[in-house]
Amino acid sequence: MRYLIILMLCLVSLSNLSAQSKDLMGFTPISAAEQRATEAKFDGYINPSNLDEWMKYMSARPHHVGSPYGKKVVDFMADKFRSWGFEVKVERFDVLFPTPKVRELELIAPTTYTAMLQEPPVAGDTYTEQTDEALPPYNCFSIDGDVTAELVFVNYGIPADYEELDKRGISVEGKIVIAKYQGSWRGIKPKLAAEKGAIGCLIYSDPADDGYVKGETYPDGAWKNEYGVQRGAVMDLPMQPGDPLTPGYGAVEGAPRVPIEGNPVLTKIPVLPISYHDAKPLLAALGGPVAPGSWAGGLPLTYRIGPGPAIVHLKIEFNWDLAPAYDVIATLQGSTYPDEWIIRGNHHDAWVHGANDPISGMVTVMEEARAVSELVKTGWRPKRTLKYCAWGAEEPGLLGSTEWVETHAEELKKKAIAYINTDGTGRGYLNAGGSHTLEKFFGEITEEIEDPTHGSSLLDRRSAKSRADGNDALSHFPLSALGSGSDYSPFFQHLGIAAFNIGFGGESSGGEYHTMYDSYEHYKRFKDPDFRYGATLVKVAGRTTLRLANADVLPFEFNRFSKTVSGYGKEVIALADDLRASTKKENTLILDGIYEEVVAPGTTLNVPKPKAEVPFLNFAPLQSGLYRIEALAGKYDASAATKVSATDRQKLNQLFKDLERSLTDDSGLPRRPWFIHHVYAPGFYTGYGVKTLPGVREAIEQRDFVEAQQQIEKLGKVLERYAAQMEQIIGLTSVKK
Amino acid sequence: MRYLIILMLCLVSLSNLSAQSKDLMGFTPISAAEQRATEAKFDGYINPSNLDEWMKYMSARPHHVGSPYGKKVVDFMADKFRSWGFEVKVERFDVLFPTPKVRELELIAPTTYTAMLQEPPVAGDTYTEQTDEALPPYNCFSIDGDVTAELVFVNYGIPADYEELDKRGISVEGKIVIAKYQGSWRGIKPKLAAEKGAIGCLIYSDPADDGYVKGETYPDGAWKNEYGVQRGAVMDLPMQPGDPLTPGYGAVEGAPRVPIEGNPVLTKIPVLPISYHDAKPLLAALGGPVAPGSWAGGLPLTYRIGPGPAIVHLKIEFNWDLAPAYDVIATLQGSTYPDEWIIRGNHHDAWVHGANDPISGMVTVMEEARAVSELVKTGWRPKRTLKYCAWGAEEPGLLGSTEWVETHAEELKKKAIAYINTDGTGRGYLNAGGSHTLEKFFGEITEEIEDPTHGSSLLDRRSAKSRADGNDALSHFPLSALGSGSDYSPFFQHLGIAAFNIGFGGESSGGEYHTMYDSYEHYKRFKDPDFRYGATLVKVAGRTTLRLANADVLPFEFNRFSKTVSGYGKEVIALADDLRASTKKENTLILDGIYEEVVAPGTTLNVPKPKAEVPFLNFAPLQSGLYRIEALAGKYDASAATKVSATDRQKLNQLFKDLERSLTDDSGLPRRPWFIHHVYAPGFYTGYGVKTLPGVREAIEQRDFVEAQQQIEKLGKVLERYAAQMEQIIGLTSVKK
Repeated sequence: MRYLIILMLCLVSLSNLSAQSKDLMGFTPISAAEQRATEAKFDGYINPSNLDEWMKYMSARPHHVGSPYGKKVVDFMADKFRSWGFEVKVERFDVLFPTPKVRELELIAPTTYTAMLQEPPVAGDTYTEQTDEALPPYNCFSIDGDVTAELVFVNYGIPADYEELDKRGISVEGKIVIAKYQGSWRGIKPKLAAEKGAIGCLIYSDPADDGYVKGETYPDGAWKNEYGVQRGAVMDLPMQPGDPLTPGYGAVEGAPRVPIEGNPVLTKIPVLPISYHDAKPLLAALGGPVAPGSWAGGLPLTYRIGPGPAIVHLKIEFNWDLAPAYDVIATLQGSTYPDEWIIRGNHHDAWVHGANDPISGMVTVMEEARAVSELVKTGWRPKRTLKYCAWGAEEPGLLGSTEWVETHAEELKKKAIAYINTDGTGRGYLNAGGSHTLEKFFGEITEEIEDPTHGSSLLDRRSAKSRADGNDALSHFPLSALGSGSDYSPFFQHLGIAAFNIGFGGESSGGEYHTMYDSYEHYKRFKDPDFRYGATLVKVAGRTTLRLANADVLPFEFNRFSKTVSGYGKEVIALADDLRASTKKENTLILDGIYEEVVAPGTTLNVPKPKAEVPFLNFAPLQSGLYRIEALAGKYDASAATKVSATDRQKLNQLFKDLERSLTDDSGLPRRPWFIHHVYAPGFYTGYGVKTLPGVREAIEQRDFVEAQQQIEKLGKVLERYAAQMEQIIGLTSVKK
Repeated sequence: MRYLIILMLCLVSLSNLSAQSKDLMGFTPISAAEQRATEAKFDGYINPSNLDEWMKYMSARPHHVGSPYGKKVVDFMADKFRSWGFEVKVERFDVLFPTPKVRELELIAPTTYTAMLQEPPVAGDTYTEQTDEALPPYNCFSIDGDVTAELVFVNYGIPADYEELDKRGISVEGKIVIAKYQGSWRGIKPKLAAEKGAIGCLIYSDPADDGYVKGETYPDGAWKNEYGVQRGAVMDLPMQPGDPLTPGYGAVEGAPRVPIEGNPVLTKIPVLPISYHDAKPLLAALGGPVAPGSWAGGLPLTYRIGPGPAIVHLKIEFNWDLAPAYDVIATLQGSTYPDEWIIRGNHHDAWVHGANDPISGMVTVMEEARAVSELVKTGWRPKRTLKYCAWGAEEPGLLGSTEWVETHAEELKKKAIAYINTDGTGRGYLNAGGSHTLEKFFGEITEEIEDPTHGSSLLDRRSAKSRADGNDALSHFPLSALGSGSDYSPFFQHLGIAAFNIGFGGESSGGEYHTMYDSYEHYKRFKDPDFRYGATLVKVAGRTTLRLANADVLPFEFNRFSKTVSGYGKEVIALADDLRASTKKENTLILDGIYEEVVAPGTTLNVPKPKAEVPFLNFAPLQSGLYRIEALAGKYDASAATKVSATDRQKLNQLFKDLERSLTDDSGLPRRPWFIHHVYAPGFYTGYGVKTLPGVREAIEQRDFVEAQQQIEKLGKVLERYAAQMEQIIGLTSVKK
C-alpha cells in the first residue's frame, strides 16, 4: 500500500514536471523555466490571512471619497507598499464630489408616507452601527431638485420599457418615475427618463432582484433586507467618466474647472435611490393599468403603472464641493525595460465600508505586491516596470483612475504595456474580460491554476459550469468583452492600452452592493470566508503581471482576436438584417391593424407609428478589414517570435505595445469623443454593458443609418491600421535571422 | 358622399351574398342554401339577455352535487327544455360523493398557526355571504387522514420538481408536501407525492399564479384574494373518470358497487387545498435550502424547501355518502335519420355558485336549444336527432356524463355522430379542441362568424393574435388536441365518438375558479358583462350542431387529420432521439463528475445515477400507418361525396360515424383500459394536459422501451384499421354513379 502511494506521488511529480516543461507564451524555453520557478516561489509567499487582516482594517469604518477614514486607508496602503520596498507616490486630484445635504421624499396623495431613507443597524454586525460616519443613500451627480408630480412605474427604465409605455399611451412627461435597479447600469435610468420628459427619478431595489425572493436577507442571509439601499454614481458615464469639472485632462492643482451648472455629465433631473421598504407604499398607491407580467417584482402587491393617483414630493440638495481623490502608485523599476510598464490596480474608496467592493479586490493587489517584494528579497527583479495602483474616487465615476490617466496620458501611451484591474471579488468561478489579443496568453494561466475547493484547473471548472448549464465544454478560457464600471475604462477605452478585469464570483451572490451592509462581517459570512478565492486571485493576477513583466516577446497573438472580432462583425451585419426584417414585420402589423384587433377590453391602445425601412448598408469596408486580419492571423508564430534577434524582439515588443491602440481613432465615438476604442465600449443606453464595434452597432440600434455607414467606413480604416501593424509584426518574425 | 355609402353597402351585400353562396362542407348546393337560411334565422333568435337571466337564477345559490339548489337548477332546466318542446328525461345516477366532515390544519412547530380554511364574504357581493349552503374548500376523493409530519415545499409537485429535490438529496418520504396549484392538473400532485412516499399533501394557490401578482384581487379586481381556495377533484382521472364505485358501467339503481376502501382512483394520502393566507405562515416556517429561483412565488418571503423545521398536523374526514347526479337529456327527434345523434352538452353542477364554471357554458346550451325550438315552430326539423344535455356531478370527476355514457354505451356506439361540449366560457378568442377529421368543417364556421367586439371573423381574430404574438398568420383555424377536464372525455376517449370542446377566453382571466368568488357578480364585472361572447358561442356551437345534424354527407375529411397526426408521429420519433441524446449527455456529465464540480458551497449534492441508454426503436409500423393515411387523404373529395346516390350517402355516413372509433382499441392504454383512444388521451402525469399518441409517447417518457415498442406496433395496427376505413369511404366516393 505504501509503495503504491509513493508510486502515485512519483507520477504526480512527473505530471507536474511535464506541465512545468510546457511552453510558455512569449518565453524562450530557458526563460520559461526561470519564470515557472519564480511563480512557484511567488505562490509560496501568498498568505490568505493577510487578505483577511487588511480587509478587517481597511473596511473597519466608512471610507468614501473625502472621508477621514478614507485618508487613513490611503496612508495604510502607502505605508505597506513602502515597507515592501516600492517607490510610492500618492497623487492627489481635487475632484467634484457632491454629498447630500437635503434628502426628502414623501407620498402626498392619495395616502401619505414619508420615506425613511436610512439603513438601520442590524443585529450581529456592529459595523452597521457607524451611521454617523457613513454617507446616507444617494445617487452621486444627481442635480439638486425640488419636484412634486404624479408617479409612474417604468420597470427598469430602459428603452424597451418606454416602448411598452408608449403602446399604452402613457407618457412620463412632467412626472416622477420610479424604476427598479438592475436591467441596466443605474445612470441610464435618469438619463432616459429625462429624455422622455420626466422631472424626477426614484430607483429602488426590488426584492425579486436581490432581496428576499433570492434568499434570506441580511443579517439572516446575504440578500438585501427591506432597508438596504444601493448608492451609486449616476453621471453620464458612457459619455465620459472622471471629474466632471476637468473633462479630458487631469484635475491637478491649477487646472481650469468648467462650470458645475449645466455640466453635461450631471443628470438632467433629481435622482434618489430608495429601499423596498420605502418603495412599497409608493407602488401600492399607484393606479392605472396593471404593469406587464414581466415587470412585476417581489413585493406583495399588484404592480400598476400609474400615472398617479400617487403623487410624490422629492427634494434633494447637495454640497457641491471638491474633495481629494488619492491615488497610491507603488512602483518597482524594471531591470531591463524600465520604460515598459505593467500596471496593476484596484480602487480603494467605498460607498460605506466596502468590504467586498472594493476592499476584497484591493487586498489582492496588496498581497501580490507583497509577494513580489519577497521575490525581490531573493534577488529577483522584473524585466519591465511594475506599478501597483490603488485608485481613489472610483465610486462616483472612475475619478481617481481617470484623472491619473488623463494627467499621465502621453507617458502612458509611450510606456504602458497592459493594465490589469480587479474590483470586488468573491467565490466561485473565475471571470475575466479583456483584450482578445491576450486571450490565449491568459488562457494558459487558467489552465495551470487550481480551483482552491475542487482542485481542478480554473478553466476546467468554468468548463464544467458550462456543461452543467447545458452548453458545450470550453475549448479555451473565454475573455468577455469589456464595457465599463471599473478602472480599466480610462486605460482601455480612452488610451487604447490592453487591459484585463478579473475576479471570482457565482457562489457568493448577495444584496449588499453599495449598501451599509457590505461589511467585513457580511464578507466573512457569505463571500469568501477563508479568502481562498482571494488568494487564488492573487495567483491569477500575479502570473498575469509577472509574465507580462518578464516575457521575452510580449505574449500577444492574433487568432483569437480575429475569430472574436469576426464574430462581432457577423453580429452587426445580422443586426441590420434582423432589424430590417423585424421593422418590416412590425410595420405590417401596424398597417394591417393587428394591434387594434388584439387590444383587450378596457385598455388604452396607442398604435406605434410605422418606422422607416432599414436600408441595405455597405458592410464591405468592415468585411474586407476583418478578412485581411483573418488572413494575417495565421501567419504569426508566437514561438518563432522568441527566436528573433534581441533587437527585433524589442521592435516586436514596441509594436505589440501599440497594437491595442491601433484599434482606436482619436476622433472617438459619435457624441462621446473621450471613448476612442472602436471595438469595445460601454453602451450609450446600457451603461456598464459592453457594445462591441460600438460606432456601427449603436448607430444601427438607434436607426441612424447614415451614421452607421460612416461608422462602418471608419471601422474599416481602424481595422486596416490594425492589419498594417500585424504585417509589421509578422514581417519581423517570418524572416529567419 | 351618400352615393358612395350606398355603393359600399351594395358591395358589402354582394360580398355577403358571395359568402352565402360558398360551398358548405357536406351539403349539396341546394341544401347549403337552405342550411344558410336556417342559420340566419337561428342567429336572429339568439338573445343575450336570456343568458344573463338564466345565469342569475342558476348561480343564485351554491348548487354542488346533492345540494337542494342543485336539484332546483335541474328542475329549472328540465322545465325550460320541456317548455321549448323537447322530450326531456332526467336520468339519475347515485354516485359516491364525499363531502368534508373534519378539516383541520395547523402548524405545530417551530411556530404555531391554525389555518382558517374558510373564504370570508367580500363587500359588494352578497352571493359570497351564503356560506351555510356552500361546501367549504376541499379536494374531492381525497382519503381520510390524520397525519403529522415535517413539511416539504415541492413547487408544483410535478415530475421535474422531484428531480430537483433528488439532486438536493431531499426526500418527501414520511413528510407532508405543500405544492402550488397549476403546472399540472391538481390530482397529479397527491398522486406523485404518494408515489414518492409522502403521507399528506397541501395544495395552495400562489399569488404569482392567479393572485395579486397578476392583477387586483376580488372584489377590487378579478384575481384571487388571499382567502380564495380552489376546490376540485383529485381522483385519478387520467386512469378513469366517473363514479369510483361503478368502474366502467353505469351507477344505476341496483348496479353493484365496488368497495370504497382501497378504491384505486382515490388518493393514497390525505389532500387539502388552502389559500395563500393559510399557506404563508407554513412556507415562512420552512428551513432547508432556498428553493430554485423558478420555484419562488409571489409571497413576501424566501421560498425554502425544508424538510421542516415546520411541522404540520393535517386531519381530514369525509362523509362517504352516495349522492344523486342528475343528467337532463332533452331530445328532438331527427326527421330523416332519427338514429343518428348529434349530442350537445355542458355540466350544470358547480363547486359553489359556479357562475362561470359551469353556468356560463350551460346557458349557451339552453339558448341554443331555445333557438332551435323557435326554428321548429317555423316547421323546420333537424334531419338527425339532437340531444341537449346538462350533466350533473362533473366537478368531482365527470361523473354524470361518464355514468350516462357507460349506461348507454352500446346505443351511443351505434347512433352518436358527434359530441359538442362547452364548459365555463368568457371573453376574447375562440378556443376549440377536437377531432381533426372535423377541423376543416369547424374552420368554415370560424370564418363566417364575427367577433362581437371587433367585427372580424373569429378565425381572423385568432390569426391577428398569432401575429401580435410574433407568430405567423393562421392559414386555418386550428383545433387543439383534447386531453381531459370536461365531459367530452367519456364520449371521445372511452367510446371513440368524434368530439369538440369550445369556448371563449383570453380577455377574461381571473382567480375565481372553483372558489366562493365565482359568482354572478364576478362574472358580470370581469368575464363577459353583456354576454356578447356567450351569444357568439351559441352561434358557433349552434352551427356546429345544426350542420352536423343536417349535412347530406357528414363533413369529415382526412387531410388535416393526416397532417396533424403525422406531426404527432414526428414528435414521438424526435422524442426518442432527443431522449437518447439527452440521456447520453446527462450520463456523461454524471460520469465526468461535472455535478461535483459545480456544487455550490454549503449545499448538499446527490449526484443522479446514470440512466440506461435509449435503444433505437422500430418506428416502421407507425411510419407506414401514417404514410398510408397520408397517401389516401388526398383521394377523398368532400364535394364529390355529396353527389353519390342516396344509398351510398347513407353508407358513407355510417362509415364516418365509426371513423373516430377506428382510432380506438378495446384493450385500452397501458394501466388504464378505460381510455381506448390511441391518438388523444389525458397525460398520466399531466392530468388535463393532452398526450397525443399516448401509448407510445408516455412509454418513451417513462423510459419503458419494451412497452414503447409494443405500443408502436399497436398504434400501427390502429392506423391501418383507420386507413382501411378511409379506403371504404374513398371507394364509395370515387366511383362515379
